[in-house]
Amino acid sequence: MTFEPRDPNFAARVSESFGRQTLMSTLGAELQSVEPGRVVIRLPYREDICQQHGFLHAGAIASVVDSACGYAALTLAEPGAAVLAVEFKINLMKPAVGSEFLARGRVMRSGKTLTVCSGEFVVGEGDSPIAMMQSTIITVRDRPELES
Amino acid sequence: MTFEPRDPNFAARVSESFGRQTLMSTLGAELQSVEPGRVVIRLPYREDICQQHGFLHAGAIASVVDSACGYAALTLAEPGAAVLAVEFKINLMKPAVGSEFLARGRVMRSGKTLTVCSGEFVVGEGDSPIAMMQSTIITVRDRPELES
Amino acid sequence: MTFEPRDPNFAARVSESFGRQTLMSTLGAELQSVEPGRVVIRLPYREDICQQHGFLHAGAIASVVDSACGYAALTLAEPGAAVLAVEFKINLMKPAVGSEFLARGRVMRSGKTLTVCSGEFVVGEGDSPIAMMQSTIITVRDRPELES
Amino acid sequence: MTFEPRDPNFAARVSESFGRQTLMSTLGAELQSVEPGRVVIRLPYREDICQQHGFLHAGAIASVVDSACGYAALTLAEPGAAVLAVEFKINLMKPAVGSEFLARGRVMRSGKTLTVCSGEFVVGEGDSPIAMMQSTIITVRDRPELES
Repeated sequence: MTFEPRDPNFAARVSESFGRQTLMSTLGAELQSVEPGRVVIRLPYREDICQQHGFLHAGAIASVVDSACGYAALTLAEPGAAVLAVEFKINLMKPAVGSEFLARGRVMRSGKTLTVCSGEFVVGEGDSPIAMMQSTIITVRDRPELES
Repeated sequence: MTFEPRDPNFAARVSESFGRQTLMSTLGAELQSVEPGRVVIRLPYREDICQQHGFLHAGAIASVVDSACGYAALTLAEPGAAVLAVEFKINLMKPAVGSEFLARGRVMRSGKTLTVCSGEFVVGEGDSPIAMMQSTIITVRDRPELES
Repeated sequence: MTFEPRDPNFAARVSESFGRQTLMSTLGAELQSVEPGRVVIRLPYREDICQQHGFLHAGAIASVVDSACGYAALTLAEPGAAVLAVEFKINLMKPAVGSEFLARGRVMRSGKTLTVCSGEFVVGEGDSPIAMMQSTIITVRDRPELES
Repeated sequence: MTFEPRDPNFAARVSESFGRQTLMSTLGAELQSVEPGRVVIRLPYREDICQQHGFLHAGAIASVVDSACGYAALTLAEPGAAVLAVEFKINLMKPAVGSEFLARGRVMRSGKTLTVCSGEFVVGEGDSPIAMMQSTIITVRDRPELES
């Protein structure tokens, strides 16, 4: 699927909004790439975001995949609109073993009100996913207190 | 529903395991209560775990509710068994506005292999939930490298 | 939670719409009760809606719980608005053994655009649930081709 | 991903088990193709499996996608093992308009106990999906009362 962004500044807008997501810097996540309908976030392994066995906590994984999906949706929003997570579901399929990970979000359906995204969490390009997400995002308009 | 714990030391075991979840201290979360089949985690609002509009990030919310559900499952596991998150789904129903929040996990079905939990994220006792979770947890045995 | 219906004819409207859901009569489901924010559907066991081991098929269970949730949302919609399922997640917790079952849908959050419902599938009043659902429903307005 | 079936008779086994899923024939669904880790089910439009606006009911869609996912898991199970749906989540992305549909199930992760599948519901090969599913299936062994 290819998408036509409604805002020519979509990449700068995602980058600026990502910079305001304080959880991302707390987790050590960085924006890796932004294309229409697709966003990738990089997350290095860190000892302070783990569960009890020393693997990355499912919540840390969910956080970055949720952000990747939300920003994939934002790449397609018109100027002034904001996006909010409605819900998501994530399957954790194997322990997150590695020194660096990628969270990928991809728009599967872009509607006027709702966007459905597919996300995954992988070690590298060719690998089978560590986690898989399906998420729903709402586009909010005419709410000046919410920016991008 | 009432549950009979298989490990008389279930509360100490949850507490000790929670102390090893480094993501919880990174987020500022604390264990509030542990009963058979029910766990509550407290999360104060902090500016460094937010999304772009200054609300708590959905991932921070998911992290503590997922831990509350996982530990609710662990209260019912026999000594030596460990629990791992298989998957969860969360609905974000309103912005997380407040200075302190509670994540509650509750066992809905306790099976030999799988446990199903229901979770919620609230400001206080009587309030309607900010978020609602349904999660599946697997009990793993004979894996000495995984402890509780 | 108690809800104030926006349409005094909500019960007749749900009943009339249910009568047009041909899948419900194909499965043998009947509307049992309609209150603001809560709907119950009855499903007798039948041999022609099963999976390979003779238990009710997860899809048959999901169908009636999804309808119960959708109609719980419709009880709170204003006249002329319609509701559509956005997504749902269901956990199947034990085999559906019994001669008659109840699917219960309950509104957890009623917003202008989105409604979040909690559903369950049980044999009788006091029993632990066979299945548990969390679902999201969208309210659609100004679409005369969609009625209730 | 390619998978090595543990049962050389996997296709006949799926076909035989599908024949015992009475819900499938009640809905008018037919098995279209069976490969290791992938199953496709065909569902013609029928007026008796619809919701109130005459579109296919979300539950009918979920039923066939759930079966496609479950049978995709069964293609990889060893002889004598059975599979049961643990949970699934489905997003309905656009109305099911068409005269015939395909439900596709695909294994994303094949574990000893749990299998995670990805499913979709489409009109034809190149189309964007009408619905998207993520599901978890458990493999059950040494339960002679459950066959395939």
